[in-house]
Amino acid sequence: MSVPPKRRLKHWGWGYEDSESSREETLQAAAAIRSHLGFGEGEVESPVALADIGLPEARLAPPAGLAPICRTDPYERASHALGKSYCDVVRGFRGRFDHPPDVVAHPRDEGEIAAVLEWCESAGADAIPFGGGTSVVGGVEPRGERPAVTIDLRALDLVLEVDRVSRSARIQAGATGPGLEEQLRPHGLTLRHFPQSFEYSTLGGWLATRAGGHFATGPTHIDDLVESVRAICPRGAWESRRLPASGAGPSPDRLLIGSEGILGVITEAWVRVQARPGFRASVGVGFHSFEAGAEAARTLGQSGLQPSNCRLLDPGEAAVTGAGADGRALLLIGFESSDHPLDAWLARALECCADHGGSPTGEPALRTSTDTGSASGKPEGAWRNAFLRAPYLRDTMVAAGILSETFETATTWDRLPGLVRDVREAAVAALAEVCEAGVVTCRLTHVYPDGAAPYFTVLAPARRGAECEQWQAVKEAASEAIASAGGTITHHHAVGRDHRSAYDRQRPELFAAALRAAKRELDPAGILNPGVLIDP
Amino acid sequence: MSVPPKRRLKHWGWGYEDSESSREETLQAAAAIRSHLGFGEGEVESPVALADIGLPEARLAPPAGLAPICRTDPYERASHALGKSYCDVVRGFRGRFDHPPDVVAHPRDEGEIAAVLEWCESAGADAIPFGGGTSVVGGVEPRGERPAVTIDLRALDLVLEVDRVSRSARIQAGATGPGLEEQLRPHGLTLRHFPQSFEYSTLGGWLATRAGGHFATGPTHIDDLVESVRAICPRGAWESRRLPASGAGPSPDRLLIGSEGILGVITEAWVRVQARPGFRASVGVGFHSFEAGAEAARTLGQSGLQPSNCRLLDPGEAAVTGAGADGRALLLIGFESSDHPLDAWLARALECCADHGGSPTGEPALRTSTDTGSASGKPEGAWRNAFLRAPYLRDTMVAAGILSETFETATTWDRLPGLVRDVREAAVAALAEVCEAGVVTCRLTHVYPDGAAPYFTVLAPARRGAECEQWQAVKEAASEAIASAGGTITHHHAVGRDHRSAYDRQRPELFAAALRAAKRELDPAGILNPGVLIDP
Repeated sequence: MSVPPKRRLKHWGWGYEDSESSREETLQAAAAIRSHLGFGEGEVESPVALADIGLPEARLAPPAGLAPICRTDPYERASHALGKSYCDVVRGFRGRFDHPPDVVAHPRDEGEIAAVLEWCESAGADAIPFGGGTSVVGGVEPRGERPAVTIDLRALDLVLEVDRVSRSARIQAGATGPGLEEQLRPHGLTLRHFPQSFEYSTLGGWLATRAGGHFATGPTHIDDLVESVRAICPRGAWESRRLPASGAGPSPDRLLIGSEGILGVITEAWVRVQARPGFRASVGVGFHSFEAGAEAARTLGQSGLQPSNCRLLDPGEAAVTGAGADGRALLLIGFESSDHPLDAWLARALECCADHGGSPTGEPALRTSTDTGSASGKPEGAWRNAFLRAPYLRDTMVAAGILSETFETATTWDRLPGLVRDVREAAVAALAEVCEAGVVTCRLTHVYPDGAAPYFTVLAPARRGAECEQWQAVKEAASEAIASAGGTITHHHAVGRDHRSAYDRQRPELFAAALRAAKRELDPAGILNPGVLIDP
Repeated sequence: MSVPPKRRLKHWGWGYEDSESSREETLQAAAAIRSHLGFGEGEVESPVALADIGLPEARLAPPAGLAPICRTDPYERASHALGKSYCDVVRGFRGRFDHPPDVVAHPRDEGEIAAVLEWCESAGADAIPFGGGTSVVGGVEPRGERPAVTIDLRALDLVLEVDRVSRSARIQAGATGPGLEEQLRPHGLTLRHFPQSFEYSTLGGWLATRAGGHFATGPTHIDDLVESVRAICPRGAWESRRLPASGAGPSPDRLLIGSEGILGVITEAWVRVQARPGFRASVGVGFHSFEAGAEAARTLGQSGLQPSNCRLLDPGEAAVTGAGADGRALLLIGFESSDHPLDAWLARALECCADHGGSPTGEPALRTSTDTGSASGKPEGAWRNAFLRAPYLRDTMVAAGILSETFETATTWDRLPGLVRDVREAAVAALAEVCEAGVVTCRLTHVYPDGAAPYFTVLAPARRGAECEQWQAVKEAASEAIASAGGTITHHHAVGRDHRSAYDRQRPELFAAALRAAKRELDPAGILNPGVLIDP
């Protein structure tokens, strides 16, 4: 008996099948987007239906013992074949599934994971761990020469233990954002980790890729929320001791976190959770330039005030939010606490902004909520909902012939202005060459005492049938500019297969040697996610 | 021409030669300690003079090319032979230097470090990186069978670059706490990392051992202050990209941080520095029990207020500070900021304490300092000075026949009461058996949202000549209790050679395999600090 997720994900693009837009909704949305952007032409296309897709013949069949948890039907193979980068969505939309897995396994416990890995080793197959399938860097696509078994972990979706005293929880790797939050809510707790893929991605995926939540400061990377991790490797189980902190040798967790499925299959973790915030304060502040806003963001990042939101939108992005920035850059500032009113925090933040010429775009909002449940209905909730809806829009853009992608990085404050300028110029130049038009906008998504994470959005007219080539050209130009400016090739999108060359430039070569050596030890047959992080 | 440190460290015990107590001072201090504790008998001994020590014959001489930076005289060999655990100090005091290095190298740059490593490989010698020599876990003691070359890094002591915009600095590994702070002060900056060994230990040592500063919350482990690290390994140079954050694969820095000299010799790092704090607030709060104080500390740790100090002393420790706790447990609370007054923070902290029955032991102190320089003269400064002076006292205790050691760990809040009880009982029982008397006190030094770091101090009558056996018995009892209660064998003292067995129990066996594999890759001849973290 197989255990598929309760709701089926679309075999292409973002979201569940039952939430897919109707043809009419897509036509309306496409018209609105085209009108807003001023480009995007021709027929609004429809995706190739699953029944019309011709998948390559499967090269492998599961052994009898594993057959009950394995599936080989076209839906399962297609829906696990690609991630969710723009090029992935385009390929899925057009029914181009050149490298689907041959088998999709749905293990229900660690024993079944170990059995699948053992089978892959003996069958000479690649084993690809799969959470929500939301990778935008080719992290789950079987591009190897050998047969591939994708290991879908979503049957392991439980919060197993909750420790209210220590505010931590033991959670299985296949739990999605909403799934684990729903199980934590009765305890008055939240993991408070909201990456843009929150609805579909899983704790295991977050750990494997060092996911970043949407909070601007404090522990926003999943790395900082981990007490211990458990994984099944081809050579056995890996489990670290559950600790709030330790100084005993290099951190075992930090080797597994970010390993993107090449060392083992993460099965569960003890993570830090929090009381649900009852106090909230927020304000939008306008600045005459992105640079002035960045100086204010830097001041706030270095102030110790720890705003939960400190997101700087350039005038282009601010205009889209319609938040009254009037052509100015917009800094969205928010504080959250489960413990205390935030008046003093917000007042000081506004002083810092005024020092850099910033003025509020409206009255600050200070709220004490007795409903510590969902944030929906409140401005933060509205912002978060819009944030989570953005990837759906991209599916419509593909139909409407609009290229849409994002690039992100992080760098220190001293190098930030130069990096933003270089990446913007490189992307604009690439768009001019390969798309003949387009817009590039930038926001700062995360603010550290010593630097920030700029996030670039690119929108341009797509040339039907050549979208992936256009995407590739823009991505290469942006990546080259990021690498040359000394940024990281990824702040929270991970490396996967698409960022390999820039990643290889970035990491110490001796670390690469150490990582290869570690993999040889844990995965001697090299079955786990080959091509990711290191060469097969 | 060799480049020894400007002031010579004592060849045994804590501190510089020129700050060693006179015989009369030692006698007075010994009498005071004995009177206070009610034990410690017999003659107050004097240390064996350097001239009276017979060191084993050196088994190795440096090649001509390295001779100018190498020293083989008795002072150099003796003063690099041991760390600073109680047993180390006892051995040094008695002139027992059974395993001194054969040669001490003082490289002045990375080229010389590489040359020393190359020589060690070809000569079949162990290479032991050495910073301040303050290890309390046997981390710098050459216990191997092969000849040993200690690599003293204190000639690399410069702050090479300061980036005031990003608040970061590039600092050489051999810079001591005072040395790097002195160089940062003209920029109005501080690393703000104050381990108890601050005066002598070095940035490289802190990185190699995952040192903890004395601040109770926030980024107090050196791990969290790192932008990038550079190291010289036997197979070449390792340098990570300088970044405020990254999601690109497992963190290279986190593999090097805590590697305790077995993977490479750390030579420099970009670290996060801070503006010197001008606002300070502090208060002492008394609680009727350690347990009630721990609940208040937990509330503060989970409040998001981020106190810089949140140190809970049990009644025994509180009595020693004489801070008016009247037999109660004492919670020392402090806030620091370079940005804003701290009234709201302190007021809320006092409310949290009152909720757990805590009452202030005096008026809260709220200070705005225009002198953002040294903290000395102020209560925090006084506390810090006392904290830094504690290790000197131990030298006197050795002379006075008093066993003195500390054990530390970290665990989650739910397991904290049981762990503190178990370790206390185990240490008391061991003292009763091997010392026939003694006291065990406990404080919480660091507070996390999900747990805390308890720190135990043991004082007992020593049996002259059998001190190390007594120490060993107490240490084993405490370590066993810590391990059984699920704590880490070290929160900030590191593993070295003395914590190996508990560390081996604690880490995932597959992580040990990965670490061994990484070492084989970076240090194929296995010359670097053998016996530390993994078997030679």
